[in-house]
Amino acid sequence: MNIGILGLGTVGGGVVNVLAKNNAEIKRRTGASIQVTHAAVRDVNQARICPTDHIKLTEDPLTIVNDASIDVVLELMGGTGLAKELVEAALRNGKHVITANKALIATHGNALLALAKSNNVHLLFEAAVAGGIPILKSLEQGLSANQVEMVAGIINGTGNFILTEMRDKGRDFADVLKEAQELGYAEADPTFDVEGIDAAHKLAILASIAFGCELDFDKVSSEGISEVSGEDVAFATELGYSIKHLGIAKKINGQIQMRVHPTLIPKTQLLANVDGVMNAVLVKGNAVGPTLYYGAGAGAEATASAVIADLVDVIKGTVSADVFGWKSLKAVQSQNVNDIESVFYLRLLAKDTTGVLADITSILANHNISVESVVQKQIDAQNNAHIAIITNSVETGDINTAVAEIQEKDFIQAAIKIIHVETLD
Amino acid sequence: MNIGILGLGTVGGGVVNVLAKNNAEIKRRTGASIQVTHAAVRDVNQARICPTDHIKLTEDPLTIVNDASIDVVLELMGGTGLAKELVEAALRNGKHVITANKALIATHGNALLALAKSNNVHLLFEAAVAGGIPILKSLEQGLSANQVEMVAGIINGTGNFILTEMRDKGRDFADVLKEAQELGYAEADPTFDVEGIDAAHKLAILASIAFGCELDFDKVSSEGISEVSGEDVAFATELGYSIKHLGIAKKINGQIQMRVHPTLIPKTQLLANVDGVMNAVLVKGNAVGPTLYYGAGAGAEATASAVIADLVDVIKGTVSADVFGWKSLKAVQSQNVNDIESVFYLRLLAKDTTGVLADITSILANHNISVESVVQKQIDAQNNAHIAIITNSVETGDINTAVAEIQEKDFIQAAIKIIHVETLD
Repeated sequence: MNIGILGLGTVGGGVVNVLAKNNAEIKRRTGASIQVTHAAVRDVNQARICPTDHIKLTEDPLTIVNDASIDVVLELMGGTGLAKELVEAALRNGKHVITANKALIATHGNALLALAKSNNVHLLFEAAVAGGIPILKSLEQGLSANQVEMVAGIINGTGNFILTEMRDKGRDFADVLKEAQELGYAEADPTFDVEGIDAAHKLAILASIAFGCELDFDKVSSEGISEVSGEDVAFATELGYSIKHLGIAKKINGQIQMRVHPTLIPKTQLLANVDGVMNAVLVKGNAVGPTLYYGAGAGAEATASAVIADLVDVIKGTVSADVFGWKSLKAVQSQNVNDIESVFYLRLLAKDTTGVLADITSILANHNISVESVVQKQIDAQNNAHIAIITNSVETGDINTAVAEIQEKDFIQAAIKIIHVETLD
Repeated sequence: MNIGILGLGTVGGGVVNVLAKNNAEIKRRTGASIQVTHAAVRDVNQARICPTDHIKLTEDPLTIVNDASIDVVLELMGGTGLAKELVEAALRNGKHVITANKALIATHGNALLALAKSNNVHLLFEAAVAGGIPILKSLEQGLSANQVEMVAGIINGTGNFILTEMRDKGRDFADVLKEAQELGYAEADPTFDVEGIDAAHKLAILASIAFGCELDFDKVSSEGISEVSGEDVAFATELGYSIKHLGIAKKINGQIQMRVHPTLIPKTQLLANVDGVMNAVLVKGNAVGPTLYYGAGAGAEATASAVIADLVDVIKGTVSADVFGWKSLKAVQSQNVNDIESVFYLRLLAKDTTGVLADITSILANHNISVESVVQKQIDAQNNAHIAIITNSVETGDINTAVAEIQEKDFIQAAIKIIHVETLD
């Protein structure tokens, strides 16, 4: 098999390096010595992280997707413009395509999978979700006996690094973000990571495979971590939780909810102990119960590991002809956001006058919301009380109405913070 | 495809129940409606956990393995006597075999896999290791790009339940074991679970697949948890560790070490936070880095989930013709136990006289062993000091020699306890 790569950057270079260093082991597993024969790059004279002695380099990616001698194209250039055109051309030309491009799959996956199917080739994208963790294969094969009830994942390493540093070192969001950028974890424009768009792309893909529905990125509600304060992190710790930026997809009564937001998780849950840049995905199946998959969500060789795993499946013929049960996927019936049930954390700044807590809890009670735990910090110099509340499980519409009512009270001194809590039970 | 089950107990009954309740989802993934057509049971009149209306029951398992209409046999009866004969007969008769029987695979797997290969059928056993966790598929497919460096797992739920209760509630081993037996977690004869034999079976299988070597159960060194005391658990906690019963396989310079023993793991490691009856396996690949797989290691439906996943792979044709790279497996070159490098925890009971700790550390230093941390508890009523020491990484032969020398000293009041420490870095 001849293999052409589009893009020899971090991931593409990683693929070439891993194929070289693990050639013997991969040959043992596949019976084949896999070699990249062609690669398209922006500038053939640029220095790279991998040797290119045996690779025919070109600056024109079209020559690769149109080369009749190439059987598999690895799309590792990113973006949804040129990458999409090249993937389409490769599929039309009867080539298998393997990609690490979450944005491309999340936004154009339905059409691309249909195109692959009609050309009798595979379009695989294990590396697009949670880097090196074989989560898509686990959902598709390892858990094939299950109806999946929930997928909940820490699927953006940058966000997890920031939240971990805030918790462990008491640092501010802006301060840690700056360090993450210096370390190369976060882009110069951190919006995709920090505001949850990258996680939303991955969640749309996870939900599609877990529940057998079409990809529907537009139905993912997404909230970033830039509004999580040091005070929230400290309150969470005191209440026995860790704050994680979670992507959650659940199927309830035939309806699907997909949401990315900061989430308080009980410290006793394994997910709450996934720290730094690491990723993890919790999957609940109706036969197997809870299972969790943990590993590096990014990095040259970790991502290459997933790309090559797809390649090995193609070469060994261990890809299902109807990968991901694609022919039977249904459109998402998504749940109304107001109907989503969740436990909530509320943080309030209130004048320290008699009866404040009673007022707050009675408004909550009027909306059938009860208080599971409450923590109040020392009164500050402005004579304000800092209060954190954990509610019972309620509908999102109800908590929003109740909080709006509390917000109107004279004794409230700042906007009330609402963060989801997931027990993950 | 017609499917025959040998054994309709916990796992067999679970398979029938899961196939029934998830029929639509499995059909979506496979295009086929999977039904068990035949089952062999000890007593056809016995009450069972699953309905048997559409299953032809027999008390003669030979009729199933010899029935020409049956394509796949699920061996879920256990044991290595009759089960082995039946599996051999089924394979010889050209039937695929799927089993949850770790003892059978660990002790007779080489011959059985060769027999399957020569008959052009599959022998699969995802359920034999870590119950519902798709760890074998992840090693074989998801991590196919990697040279595996280490596998370390909590692969016996009973042992993990006991150690978790000892830690969290300060209970004694014998006391918790009795409860585990009452709860049905531990057998009346708990030897297999508690002395590490069950874990050793699973580790031999994991190592074979991870490193591409033949199964070699006899080369697994195995130590149980019955000698772990409440004092060890308390010291471990104070030093920042959890004690887990770990199965560890490493490949170092072409040699393989396989060992099951109580192990101190830093609390910051995810494995240290896997509690109760749950299982988890940490795999380090040379491309992907550390990855971890967590879930239920036992139970009717969790185990059934893994059995059916194998069945789905057989039906979809997504099993490699040369599953686990079997044709190229080499005999294990196992490492001499004395050469195995490890950090160690030592617990000593010594007379509280001047210079005791200096004497101990100087003997250790004479063997090039340094002390990373040391904790000494209050002197007890007998004027003895309770001391715990964490060493640097040393060879097992050296620590044993040094400890034997310390043991001879007059001030030592009891046998010195040695427990492995794994940083898992």
